[in-house]
Amino acid sequence: MVAEILSVGTELLLGNIVNTNAAFLSQELAGLGVSVFRQTTVGDNHKRLFNALGNAFSNADVVIISGGLGPTLDDITKEVAAEYFGRKLILHEESLERIKIRFAARGREMPTNSNRNAIIPENSLILPNDNGSAPGVVVEGNGKTLILLPGPPHEMIPMFTNYVAPFLQQKSGRVFVSRTLKIIGIGESQVESMLMDLITAQTNPTIAPYAKVSDCHVRLTASAECEKDAEKLIAPIAAEIHRRLNPHIYSDNDLTLPEIVVSLLETQNHTLAVAESCTGGLIMSELVSVAGCSSVFMEGLCAYSNKAKITRLGVPANLLQNHGAVSAEVAAAMAERAAKVADTSVGLSTTGIAGPDGGSAEKPVGLVYIGLCINDKVESEKFNITGSRNEVRVRAANLAMDMLRRKLERVNH
Amino acid sequence: MVAEILSVGTELLLGNIVNTNAAFLSQELAGLGVSVFRQTTVGDNHKRLFNALGNAFSNADVVIISGGLGPTLDDITKEVAAEYFGRKLILHEESLERIKIRFAARGREMPTNSNRNAIIPENSLILPNDNGSAPGVVVEGNGKTLILLPGPPHEMIPMFTNYVAPFLQQKSGRVFVSRTLKIIGIGESQVESMLMDLITAQTNPTIAPYAKVSDCHVRLTASAECEKDAEKLIAPIAAEIHRRLNPHIYSDNDLTLPEIVVSLLETQNHTLAVAESCTGGLIMSELVSVAGCSSVFMEGLCAYSNKAKITRLGVPANLLQNHGAVSAEVAAAMAERAAKVADTSVGLSTTGIAGPDGGSAEKPVGLVYIGLCINDKVESEKFNITGSRNEVRVRAANLAMDMLRRKLERVNH
Repeated sequence: MVAEILSVGTELLLGNIVNTNAAFLSQELAGLGVSVFRQTTVGDNHKRLFNALGNAFSNADVVIISGGLGPTLDDITKEVAAEYFGRKLILHEESLERIKIRFAARGREMPTNSNRNAIIPENSLILPNDNGSAPGVVVEGNGKTLILLPGPPHEMIPMFTNYVAPFLQQKSGRVFVSRTLKIIGIGESQVESMLMDLITAQTNPTIAPYAKVSDCHVRLTASAECEKDAEKLIAPIAAEIHRRLNPHIYSDNDLTLPEIVVSLLETQNHTLAVAESCTGGLIMSELVSVAGCSSVFMEGLCAYSNKAKITRLGVPANLLQNHGAVSAEVAAAMAERAAKVADTSVGLSTTGIAGPDGGSAEKPVGLVYIGLCINDKVESEKFNITGSRNEVRVRAANLAMDMLRRKLERVNH
Repeated sequence: MVAEILSVGTELLLGNIVNTNAAFLSQELAGLGVSVFRQTTVGDNHKRLFNALGNAFSNADVVIISGGLGPTLDDITKEVAAEYFGRKLILHEESLERIKIRFAARGREMPTNSNRNAIIPENSLILPNDNGSAPGVVVEGNGKTLILLPGPPHEMIPMFTNYVAPFLQQKSGRVFVSRTLKIIGIGESQVESMLMDLITAQTNPTIAPYAKVSDCHVRLTASAECEKDAEKLIAPIAAEIHRRLNPHIYSDNDLTLPEIVVSLLETQNHTLAVAESCTGGLIMSELVSVAGCSSVFMEGLCAYSNKAKITRLGVPANLLQNHGAVSAEVAAAMAERAAKVADTSVGLSTTGIAGPDGGSAEKPVGLVYIGLCINDKVESEKFNITGSRNEVRVRAANLAMDMLRRKLERVNH
């Protein structure tokens, strides 16, 4: 199956918003074995959208339009779809009822133009909108399939996941199952070269590496007649990749690194204190992004100045003098003292040179030491990290969380 | 002038990366008075890119392609451009020299395929790449202009700003000047309604509001024969918007909120300590993102647990008991104690309910108190913030920095 993604919205052409929908849809379609040949973005303009739709169907079996389903006059997607397929627009009573209930549940009056949300091309399939007013629509004809989705990502993403993905799976008569291995501590090119023979030989499952700021994802996608068969195809390849990259794989489900760290700390009855220098609050804010972190994360100190390292943590002044703030010794002392003053079983620390200034030949920009103290046992690791000031900081924060993960899982790089 | 943006890269069609380039270019072109009619994304495929280019020029005077300028075989943009304009590809010696120097400066051997970076269509204009190997290229013919830019944003953005924007300005014979007013504490719809008459009557300058996660930008763009005349057109409108929205405008230059806060603290010889509960490190990490913040930012404590609030800050236990951790009283005490224990002139604190759980009828999710202590004078403000857990946290962190800004600038909402 070949697909085109058509994004509709003048705000996209003005650069007001970044088109994350196109990336989401592309990645999901790839996971369903659908090839995306083109992404096109046009404004809220009837003629241009109509032409873009014709243009899209000249190559694609399936066109997915996101945006332009709202109730205002510049929302023209359904009119264009009806015209393209030669269908009438009708009022879909069930959708109107849903919208009325939605407004009533919030104690708000339904604006009269909300009726327009329930106007759809006749003989089409309705995709319920569980997070907004405008339903999605599937129109089929002449062997072509047009899928209309709302523009706001928090409406579009669940609608795609819950209704469009199963619809496309059923259409293809195959089931697609994906598993994502999340890898940290080695770069995408190293991952690729370590998996080159597997990537070259890939058929089913497919193997796709994706570079992220701090880590790298490898997505395995298998197609089969049922979910169980697809899982069976994935299992041996996943096991082989685990064997090759093992300590670097921190997740093969959908959990994030902070979620895994919080969960490991919880399971092992640990409590954590963090002392951050160059990362300056990034580790804490990642941990606090996990709802319920308060059972394990006690406190964090951003000890950016030497003074704070000495007075607040009790890092010995002569350690800072003899080794410098950016040193294995100071990282270790910060981790140990963080656990001590907060009375926790685990202390985690960072100290480094995030740049752009402050580097030297001996201690260049990107040099970061991470300290970790678990039940009074202290160690530190040294990293040379590339990138801008903020990339160095984000990567250091993730490497610190990963060092904690590895020690708790008792694996080593 | 009408433009189309063509993005090239199979990684975009796989959803591996989000197309931030298209948004950046669209916003910049709007600021230069150039209308973007369409954005198209195609893979690294000669025929499809060639067709997309023809398609683009059927509407547009200017086509900007980003991506596909690299040295590997799947980088095909220059070949396609040469074919489209019927030009030969030649080696551009000056660019090759630049690339050699670039590698030498880093003590690295130049890979042989880097020669391909210096191959360009003949009779074209070269745009130097100050942050990478592949130069940009402008090809003109038959009244059409094709601009080739590298894909990586850190190469593309400065190349556009330094070379393409002046080139397009010169082409239009007009000078475009933009000024962005950054607004916090009121939403986009409120901003729009407060400026509705100005927006409706806009001609020159144009007035464009952009909603961001934590704030809202209003961009004024004027065109004139020279920069000074354009500035003169912007000045009275900017002044009027300042008059209407004043305490909410935190910046009318390119400075970010943390940059402004650090600069105000510096100028007024203040030092800052931060105590964060619900924001959990976000304020600190924003401050530390400003290079050179260490002269004013002394330390930050993430006091997420009540225990940390008591033992590390010295917030009285009965205050927590009587008013709850999320209260004006505790916010004020946290700010006061943060300044006290860190021995700084300013203390800033947050405490709130970020959700998704933990809310009640009396204290709903999104309730956030911000405490501020300047030279022993303490106050707190109450906010009801909407959004997901992380939106509440990011917005609270920005509102906290903004409260500090307002107090230092002696303006009030």
